[in-house]
Amino acid sequence: MATDISPLAPETYPTLPAIPGVRLATAAAGIRYKGRTDVLFVGLDEGTSVAGVFTRSKCPSAPVDWCRANLAGGVARALLVNSGNANAFTGAKGADAVALSARIAAQAAGCARHEVFVASTGVIGEPLDATKFEPVLPDCVSRAEGGSAAWEAAARAIMTTDTFPKLATRTVDLDGVPMTINGIAKGAGMIQPDMATMLSFVFTDASIAAPVLQALLAAAAERSFNCVTVDGDTSTSDTLIAFATGKAAMAPIETADDPRAAAFGAALEDLLVELAQLVARDGEGARKLVTVRVKGAVDDGSARRIAFAIANSPLVKTAIAGEDANWGRVVMAVGKAGEPADRDRLAIAFGDVRVAHQGARDPDYSEDAASAVMRRPEIDLTVDIGLGTGEARVWTCDLTKAYVEINGDYRS
Amino acid sequence: MATDISPLAPETYPTLPAIPGVRLATAAAGIRYKGRTDVLFVGLDEGTSVAGVFTRSKCPSAPVDWCRANLAGGVARALLVNSGNANAFTGAKGADAVALSARIAAQAAGCARHEVFVASTGVIGEPLDATKFEPVLPDCVSRAEGGSAAWEAAARAIMTTDTFPKLATRTVDLDGVPMTINGIAKGAGMIQPDMATMLSFVFTDASIAAPVLQALLAAAAERSFNCVTVDGDTSTSDTLIAFATGKAAMAPIETADDPRAAAFGAALEDLLVELAQLVARDGEGARKLVTVRVKGAVDDGSARRIAFAIANSPLVKTAIAGEDANWGRVVMAVGKAGEPADRDRLAIAFGDVRVAHQGARDPDYSEDAASAVMRRPEIDLTVDIGLGTGEARVWTCDLTKAYVEINGDYRS
Repeated sequence: MATDISPLAPETYPTLPAIPGVRLATAAAGIRYKGRTDVLFVGLDEGTSVAGVFTRSKCPSAPVDWCRANLAGGVARALLVNSGNANAFTGAKGADAVALSARIAAQAAGCARHEVFVASTGVIGEPLDATKFEPVLPDCVSRAEGGSAAWEAAARAIMTTDTFPKLATRTVDLDGVPMTINGIAKGAGMIQPDMATMLSFVFTDASIAAPVLQALLAAAAERSFNCVTVDGDTSTSDTLIAFATGKAAMAPIETADDPRAAAFGAALEDLLVELAQLVARDGEGARKLVTVRVKGAVDDGSARRIAFAIANSPLVKTAIAGEDANWGRVVMAVGKAGEPADRDRLAIAFGDVRVAHQGARDPDYSEDAASAVMRRPEIDLTVDIGLGTGEARVWTCDLTKAYVEINGDYRS
Repeated sequence: MATDISPLAPETYPTLPAIPGVRLATAAAGIRYKGRTDVLFVGLDEGTSVAGVFTRSKCPSAPVDWCRANLAGGVARALLVNSGNANAFTGAKGADAVALSARIAAQAAGCARHEVFVASTGVIGEPLDATKFEPVLPDCVSRAEGGSAAWEAAARAIMTTDTFPKLATRTVDLDGVPMTINGIAKGAGMIQPDMATMLSFVFTDASIAAPVLQALLAAAAERSFNCVTVDGDTSTSDTLIAFATGKAAMAPIETADDPRAAAFGAALEDLLVELAQLVARDGEGARKLVTVRVKGAVDDGSARRIAFAIANSPLVKTAIAGEDANWGRVVMAVGKAGEPADRDRLAIAFGDVRVAHQGARDPDYSEDAASAVMRRPEIDLTVDIGLGTGEARVWTCDLTKAYVEINGDYRS
């Protein structure tokens, strides 16, 4: 497991304000790690609405099954997250462990089991011993509070191979009333669209009916977490849940066509984009944050598929790791996407240096200028397909030896 | 560029017999490399039929365009291959370079330009100076011969990042007449289905009409080269061409329902499987040859897509590099394939050690036994989806730090 903080990490972490109706506490339950917290409990006031977006894996984890089933109720009173064990591919035992976890949390929080949302991240295939929650949860409930230290502690408790905690906050003015949205996330590998982050939780004091919150969350996820890829692999556990306590002094947003819904959705998307980029910055072994922009495709969907073909190409990602403006590999990746493309219309730029256009190397291309771009920690790669107006933008990172080391275990 | 021979290379290379009507010569034209051959010329007797299968990239190289166009004629008199420069994404200059190459080769060989097939492999995006063929080709034509040393020299001249030459031979008895099929291949990275090897050329003295040869070649490629992946990346230049000189004493095979066609096709497939496995054995940085077998899928196509999702997963491939029987990552890869799968019916085995079944770790699973399997240089990974009778088998290799090193350039 990596111990050095990613060189792409932000220099400071934001200070998250308290959100009325949200109280957090963490604990060290010894799920797997020693000497660190591995449990996050969040208590939510009565009247909290909930929405969620989950992995599209055909083999989801037991906690994902649980959350999906309980989302229908639209209300939440508690969130229980553990790191160290994903409770995925654990068969009937996995479902039992989730049910027991929810029972323990419900008892401690004084709510119904179906009002408890759970998420687990870590090793796949090992049974989760849910009894480990029993001794720590009552204390979590009594200690839980909403200060900024609690938010950072929460972001740290859910980390696995992450090298830094991921937090973001926004305020949005709805009819003159300021609302807060706080978010935390974890995720560093096994990161591919559908959902990018493994786990992310968003909290707001706005009052939003669950169906509206669900629609806003799904749309914002599509343009944020679902635009990040580290290695093209999709977790069984990817979970994004939003909780709205409704404690702010505002009339509830009951319908999607309420103009305040768009304002809230824009702030939510902005927050999720920041969290998604933090995930790419913490990609396992990452040394460069890469923004792949595709324009001129026949439509946006085609642009997106081409962008992911580039962002997931091991040959493109190793070239970037080597600070090599290897646009030939970008052409290769465009070609393998299977989308409409005309070799002789492609233009490719690294940063502001156009290295290829009209099917050949740009005659004015300066290798020195391109090399200077490639040495930067953040690189924009722009491909113009030259056929239409379709656009997409995805984030990824380079593929380094450290990625192989982190994931290779090398037991020898 | 790698200099050590892959640990998965065969201990000896086969001795290829002469094939009547086929003469080979190599030369050092200084295309890019110094101190090694980089040109292969093959002269073919009149009456040689030809068939080809090419990359499905939407951005194919100029030589691929040329070969596709000339395949319609069904006849070939010469093959010209160079390494060091792929003549891909070279715009109008690329097409000009191919036309000039064919003109030079046709003049030297005394045939029509459209009877010349060309292939190039190496750097993408750099103009190919075809005039470099001019001084070497007449000499190649006069030196060309069919002995076993010429075959090995041919396989070496087309290498790029390959660490060993790839050759195979088969004999097939057609109505009591023994026929020979020789094949050479190159390819080590940028290897994904559609087509796996970057370049492969097959020669036989059998007499087979071009349309029959085309059908047999396409079917055999589907079950051999198109079942190999190293990194999921697809070259712009992938080319497989078969030449049948018809010099053997046999009545021509004119139709696909000729029983001799099936016999020839089986031998051809067997040959291509050997070449395809050699490509996987030479995967950039590879230390393990991995055979992924999927059974119990809803149909063969579904099994194939699941098998490729596993074989292309960086997390599965790095685990294998680390000799870690990490079946949780295999579950992840099954889940991300998007194909019908039921978590609670999956069974997974490394070699003969079943590590998981019915949605959980196999209670009888021995970590020691699994570790012993993982230490081997060749690993079978079998996944039973448990839903139907669909099957597939693909070959890949592990993902090591050496892959990143070879492709990362690390100019800094």
